[in-house]
Amino acid sequence: MRASQFHLFTLKEAPSDAEVVSQKLMLRAGMIRKAAAGIYSYMPLGLRSIRKVETIIREEMDRAGAMELTMPLVQPAELWQETGRWDTMGPEMLRLQDRHDRDFALQPTSEEVVTDIARQEIKSYRQLPKNFYQIQTKFRDERRPRFGVMRGREFTMKDAYSFDRSKEAAGHSYALMFATYTRIFDRIGLDYRAVAADTGAIGGDRSHEFQVIADTGEDAIVYCPDSDYAANIELAEAVSLLEHRAEPGQALEKTPTPGSATCADVAALLQVPLATTVKSLVLATDDVDAKGEPAGVTLWLLLVRGDHSLNEIKTSKLDGLKTGFRFATEAEIDEHFGCKPGYLGPIGLQKPVKLIADRTVAHMSDFICGANDADFHFTGVNWGRDLPEPDVVADIRNVVEGNPSPDGKGTLAIQRGIEVGHVFYLGDKYSKVMNATFLDEDGKPKHFEMGCYGIGVTRILGAAIEQNHDARGIIWPTAIAPFEVVICPVGWGKSQAVRDEAQKLYEALRAQGVDVILDDRDERPGVMFADWELIGVPHRVTIGERGLKEGVVEYQGRREAEVSKLALDTIAAHLLGALGQA
Amino acid sequence: MRASQFHLFTLKEAPSDAEVVSQKLMLRAGMIRKAAAGIYSYMPLGLRSIRKVETIIREEMDRAGAMELTMPLVQPAELWQETGRWDTMGPEMLRLQDRHDRDFALQPTSEEVVTDIARQEIKSYRQLPKNFYQIQTKFRDERRPRFGVMRGREFTMKDAYSFDRSKEAAGHSYALMFATYTRIFDRIGLDYRAVAADTGAIGGDRSHEFQVIADTGEDAIVYCPDSDYAANIELAEAVSLLEHRAEPGQALEKTPTPGSATCADVAALLQVPLATTVKSLVLATDDVDAKGEPAGVTLWLLLVRGDHSLNEIKTSKLDGLKTGFRFATEAEIDEHFGCKPGYLGPIGLQKPVKLIADRTVAHMSDFICGANDADFHFTGVNWGRDLPEPDVVADIRNVVEGNPSPDGKGTLAIQRGIEVGHVFYLGDKYSKVMNATFLDEDGKPKHFEMGCYGIGVTRILGAAIEQNHDARGIIWPTAIAPFEVVICPVGWGKSQAVRDEAQKLYEALRAQGVDVILDDRDERPGVMFADWELIGVPHRVTIGERGLKEGVVEYQGRREAEVSKLALDTIAAHLLGALGQA
Repeated sequence: MRASQFHLFTLKEAPSDAEVVSQKLMLRAGMIRKAAAGIYSYMPLGLRSIRKVETIIREEMDRAGAMELTMPLVQPAELWQETGRWDTMGPEMLRLQDRHDRDFALQPTSEEVVTDIARQEIKSYRQLPKNFYQIQTKFRDERRPRFGVMRGREFTMKDAYSFDRSKEAAGHSYALMFATYTRIFDRIGLDYRAVAADTGAIGGDRSHEFQVIADTGEDAIVYCPDSDYAANIELAEAVSLLEHRAEPGQALEKTPTPGSATCADVAALLQVPLATTVKSLVLATDDVDAKGEPAGVTLWLLLVRGDHSLNEIKTSKLDGLKTGFRFATEAEIDEHFGCKPGYLGPIGLQKPVKLIADRTVAHMSDFICGANDADFHFTGVNWGRDLPEPDVVADIRNVVEGNPSPDGKGTLAIQRGIEVGHVFYLGDKYSKVMNATFLDEDGKPKHFEMGCYGIGVTRILGAAIEQNHDARGIIWPTAIAPFEVVICPVGWGKSQAVRDEAQKLYEALRAQGVDVILDDRDERPGVMFADWELIGVPHRVTIGERGLKEGVVEYQGRREAEVSKLALDTIAAHLLGALGQA
Repeated sequence: MRASQFHLFTLKEAPSDAEVVSQKLMLRAGMIRKAAAGIYSYMPLGLRSIRKVETIIREEMDRAGAMELTMPLVQPAELWQETGRWDTMGPEMLRLQDRHDRDFALQPTSEEVVTDIARQEIKSYRQLPKNFYQIQTKFRDERRPRFGVMRGREFTMKDAYSFDRSKEAAGHSYALMFATYTRIFDRIGLDYRAVAADTGAIGGDRSHEFQVIADTGEDAIVYCPDSDYAANIELAEAVSLLEHRAEPGQALEKTPTPGSATCADVAALLQVPLATTVKSLVLATDDVDAKGEPAGVTLWLLLVRGDHSLNEIKTSKLDGLKTGFRFATEAEIDEHFGCKPGYLGPIGLQKPVKLIADRTVAHMSDFICGANDADFHFTGVNWGRDLPEPDVVADIRNVVEGNPSPDGKGTLAIQRGIEVGHVFYLGDKYSKVMNATFLDEDGKPKHFEMGCYGIGVTRILGAAIEQNHDARGIIWPTAIAPFEVVICPVGWGKSQAVRDEAQKLYEALRAQGVDVILDDRDERPGVMFADWELIGVPHRVTIGERGLKEGVVEYQGRREAEVSKLALDTIAAHLLGALGQA
């Protein structure tokens, strides 16, 4: 490609509403152009990178035996009503009506459509396993779209869906997709981690996220440097920090703690470690009777250590809280505790509540908690002696750095990550409700065992930049760079020698299949360098008259601080070597 | 590809709601699967053909220097309001609202978005010419979606938009795209014709359609076998069939024509040629005064020869009718003509109307027309003598087969066609209203001269099938066939020799880059042949044990009636030769 025949349009400054570095750099480099909040055009430069990502995904999915198809963007409500997700998907699913007032959704994902296809076209176990995938536009009407392509509303996603005869076979499909994702992200060239994850709105009972490591990531990834344990913090198991409960050593005492409504305040006031305090959190569930009519409210008191935080995802999986909970209102708290928040605790309640203690809290002794009396806490609290054992002991807190790994192989570390892929084992969640069956070897209909597997194609670009950039701009991994090499001729308009050598190198590299751009715009070196460093092309060759007289050109790798002088007659081989290693 | 690892799903019968042959065959072959009216999933088999069409388009667009980008599917109303098309596009443009009640459209086309990009990113004449294209999902909410992918609601379209400095430069871009389309449709291998066409809702002042010739086409294409004249019947010029007006030979006479309300009835009753009669059609325009308030109705009497039909597209371009017209109501007709339709004519009106005569009618003498009196016609009517000259003489009729070609080089023929491509010269229609300018060499801002260029990617599949099929199924042009060659081993499960030779041929062809599928399903020959003839693979090789003993295999081209026996050791070369010629 010649720059004069391409569309380059770089900006010195990003638009003021751009928030994160990948968004700013993609806008400045001219890769994307905003059409509306969370909705972008992908300009020729950006589309080049997207196509490279798509090609890698397609090659690896095909290699794994998956088959590409395309499902509609505008999907009939009837299918979404079959699974109940028409009602449960919430406002992120954009709904619309056609001219005949029929309801449709813009696909946020395609479990319903693909299951409908499977129940029509897969009749026999002999047709299994099957894995269908598409690389297609998705739409999710984010309440607050932001971060450019990182949390856009319209985006490109690869979504795949596997159909199997049995749980065991589905496990193989899951493992194959896991391995395929590993190959894909290895080829793309990002630093990433596969972590166990929550299944969220998609459902099912096993899932892993592929997280690109970046300080700016929205997700916290917990991992063990000494083992292969890795999980999203939503899911990462927090073990008890105390092996067993020590015998009481202190007497229960009601201690004045005026104006100290947080554990940190109390620990500071009493000059004790924060880890001796216990935090009280109050949740509420709205009960219904056998007929589904409202039947009052149950309050749940959750205890975590003062230096820990509640994990709502784990909490939402506890019996009694699975169908939904909310934080209790001040009135509800007052009615049960006779006290305002800040001084709540499990001793001396007005009305009974369900008591859930975190694993660590259940092993604490001589701890401090609110006394249900404003400006007072209990100290020297001990289970059994001062209050009954908790109703439930469970893992309800977030892991913190340095906690023991649940596999017993060391301590945990935490990184920030950007989710770019997600694999789910769905089981028969969709096939059962949509009655999608095949005839098994015994002649009997069975529900498909399913998995689903997503990759955020456009988000990968943002994640790659969040992970790889500097003050000058983007630093693309070679595999998804819009161009692999840029040739910058200095004095294009003036020097025939420069033009000749630049074109010769350009043609030689093209002939070797190198994705090279020749900057024939006749711009000053400073302008060219600034553009290509912003755009992030991995390899740059500068050809000038002075160097040519000595038979040398300048080479700079995008990550390298220094320019190196290389012989003109070896530069092509040098570049091919560098690209071959990439 | 091995059939056992692919997803094949053929049907003996098409669903009962399938109307046309391409739709029936695509459904039966398992290329598409209906999700809702006019909305389809493209199954792996169908997607293979689509990808081949896309690749040809992409290669030729890139060769022409066009640059690929992707514009959003969900487009903000503001841009459509700028051009006024938010109001004029009608219910075919699907509108929707996001969770914040902001208005959006699903893109039916992208002139607004691309012009918005150009006005932001093209600042100088030095950046011109530019041609941006995308291959993207489009949505048009057809009132009655039908014919499968031929008139679907969700479909894939390649749309390109050129930006130029001047009308002359834009003419070059138009010509380049015209030539590119010719290359594209040549490569796809369809029998097609480029015809002059109306510009419709897109606007602009020049356009050509690329029409695939097929008896089932919705369009009528007029062409001259002796010259390169070709136009959609909407636009095809109808010259006067009479060189000049003859002198009157008959007296005007009011003749009883009881119960004869059509020209055909009158001609039969009076035993005269239909070409001596004149048909009267009454249109109405709703007038407005200078303030835009309603100001009554104007009636227009249009006269075409009895054997001709009115062309509403041409009519809509006449002064006074450009802003819209409708057929007059019976009450309006009664008020102006004092007569019911069937006996209307230009003589003896109650109230004045505008009189428009077709070119041929204006040259007629001694003709027959309604007498504005039920059951009576005038015969021997002559212009000037019996009624004043018409207000306007214009080409308002459809061409019929055998009419003189407007270029004077022979007579016209008519074919049916399916529109698969359309090129438009837009001029400054969009750039002016959106104030999209660049700085020209003289330092002054100028509006871009634009063109736009569409290809219906998914419709090409339907058109190819409408043109190429037989009782057994689809006959794909090789360039867009889902597979080029199928190998059908007879006795796959039983004969090691058959398996070995089939696999050897399969690998040999794959090594040569042939897109071959090996039918390793172990089905009977009849089942395999029926599937592959339905699917339409151009070349089939059958390998059986009996043939192998003689060193031969059976070859059948999809269009050939007979099977030929070919030596096993020459079959690969034979296939490569056949594909090379394709």
